[in-house]
Amino acid sequence: MIHVPVDDVRDLLLRLLVSKCLFKFDAETVAQRLIDADLRGLPEYGAASALTLLEALAAGDIDPRGRVLTVHETAAVAVLDGSRAAGAVAATKGMESAIAKANGVGVGTAVVGNSQSLGAASVFALLAAREGLIGFVTSSSGQASVAAYGSNRPAVGNHPLAWAIPVPGRPPFVLDFSTGATSWSDVRAAAVDGRPLDAGLALDAEGRPTTDAVAATTLLPMAGPRGFGLAFVCSVLCGGLAGGRLPIRRKRPGAAEDSQHFFQAIQPAEFIDPADFAKRVTAEMDDIRGLPPLPGFDRVRLAGDEDAARADRIRSEGIPLRDSVHAALGQATPGGWTRGAPTPPPRCDAP
Amino acid sequence: MIHVPVDDVRDLLLRLLVSKCLFKFDAETVAQRLIDADLRGLPEYGAASALTLLEALAAGDIDPRGRVLTVHETAAVAVLDGSRAAGAVAATKGMESAIAKANGVGVGTAVVGNSQSLGAASVFALLAAREGLIGFVTSSSGQASVAAYGSNRPAVGNHPLAWAIPVPGRPPFVLDFSTGATSWSDVRAAAVDGRPLDAGLALDAEGRPTTDAVAATTLLPMAGPRGFGLAFVCSVLCGGLAGGRLPIRRKRPGAAEDSQHFFQAIQPAEFIDPADFAKRVTAEMDDIRGLPPLPGFDRVRLAGDEDAARADRIRSEGIPLRDSVHAALGQATPGGWTRGAPTPPPRCDAP
Repeated sequence: MIHVPVDDVRDLLLRLLVSKCLFKFDAETVAQRLIDADLRGLPEYGAASALTLLEALAAGDIDPRGRVLTVHETAAVAVLDGSRAAGAVAATKGMESAIAKANGVGVGTAVVGNSQSLGAASVFALLAAREGLIGFVTSSSGQASVAAYGSNRPAVGNHPLAWAIPVPGRPPFVLDFSTGATSWSDVRAAAVDGRPLDAGLALDAEGRPTTDAVAATTLLPMAGPRGFGLAFVCSVLCGGLAGGRLPIRRKRPGAAEDSQHFFQAIQPAEFIDPADFAKRVTAEMDDIRGLPPLPGFDRVRLAGDEDAARADRIRSEGIPLRDSVHAALGQATPGGWTRGAPTPPPRCDAP
Repeated sequence: MIHVPVDDVRDLLLRLLVSKCLFKFDAETVAQRLIDADLRGLPEYGAASALTLLEALAAGDIDPRGRVLTVHETAAVAVLDGSRAAGAVAATKGMESAIAKANGVGVGTAVVGNSQSLGAASVFALLAAREGLIGFVTSSSGQASVAAYGSNRPAVGNHPLAWAIPVPGRPPFVLDFSTGATSWSDVRAAAVDGRPLDAGLALDAEGRPTTDAVAATTLLPMAGPRGFGLAFVCSVLCGGLAGGRLPIRRKRPGAAEDSQHFFQAIQPAEFIDPADFAKRVTAEMDDIRGLPPLPGFDRVRLAGDEDAARADRIRSEGIPLRDSVHAALGQATPGGWTRGAPTPPPRCDAP
């Protein structure tokens, strides 16, 4: 592992993305969302994922100059066409639209179709919480990879759900999980480390239960019919409302084919005196944290309780990158890891 | 069990509720929501629950003539004061407000504070689906009864979540679950039947794991930290936004103290051509239903697939009532089970 200062990572990502013909504004958005993910301790959606983004750019799946378009809007709703721009660009615009609507009428909802994988859903929910709003995000990317309850065949995506709740004067509550019994990044990490999976999480290509992380091709749904049902709801909020293919109808693996996202922001001040909201939520959180922990737990935590300390630690130590990722990012970028290296203007066809 | 025709149950409930000083309009609403629950196969929220309602009326927890008030509204949002009216009255008005807003601007959200237990959340989500909208409901009633993840002490409620998705020309998708590992009604049913609970669902009063349904006082959260986190989100959407006590701060058991509800309706036509929405959702559902079932399953089902057949069967056979419930309802009602029996005008102090 090589630990790289956050500003150096941002500097490299900007030069890399601009060299691939992203507008500087969009490159800044993508770089910041990847860094947001690294600071949340989600390296698979962090700077390292720029390498996946490069592959998608090279394959033509992502249009570096795709302009996210508002297809339809009301005071409360925005329907966006992601125009195959980088998923983080489209998703940032999606959540920003939802926030703007929520600041106008209390709740704002945006769906984005024709997009690409957005990365870490929680990072986009946090855009709302940072401005004092409750954020909710779900997304649909890639082929069905989670079994139907009652079948051993993939039926739905491993849709992420993320909520962020602002707590004035304190770090936000941030909940982030997927509708499968585990995440694909955990499966991949186990495969890399040669660790077995817990039983009851995954199936192999023949639909048989497996604990072999390399053999796992399908996940079981979280909590059986509940996670399966929740996944179906997510698929409809994304692909149904945004007008894309739903997971079981997608033909290509990975996120390349037609991702869709659903964003919602809620402005608490439109419902209740903000001080009252803060008091109630803070009191509940403190009461819960004060409960006696079970053996094996040092204390009772709420989702997000560790985020601020983790982010501070990573800011201080630098973002950890695998040696191979560090090298590949350096090689792909004009000027490599030299901060502020001059970059020749890219040759871009459009516009 | 005594099976009673739906119209006889409605007739009795109306006479019963009007005799307890509910306005006829409100009595019709409550009666219909209870029947809706019975037709969904949820008898604990059906006609039998009118007996619980009578207790709450007698205790003064429910105000029979409570008028649900709109405290604040925008084009997208309504904040309602349930005024301690029957929960079904306040919740029906809540979802109707959300539907009206959604038909105007695409998504409508209503929170209801100062309310009473709403019964079956799915019944209110269905109010949206019946009009062609996606409905979402969550609620917060009663003291904390689900343990925090990492503790054996109650921290959050067993908050219900229900989604209903309209499928043109077909019965809707209806998903309904709670954030605990099981439902209290299942625990009570096991206690009545003398059956043990599965392991991993409940704790006794000392916080020890138990399979004894009678000893169970606290539930574990569904899927560990996920269900716990989801419950916290529900508690904030309800008590945080509606301005009531959150579960861990409630002092009284049961639903009497300050329930809150959150309703959301989404009008798909504001996002996408309705025919396109119907086509995509129907195709995904049919693909999933066509997957090969595992041994022990006759076919792959989506949530709600059995609802129409069940409702038809109950309409044809009558609503099943325990003998004791049938007798108690008859005794409590002027004219008893005699359909259309004349009822003396009630003596009500208010309005």
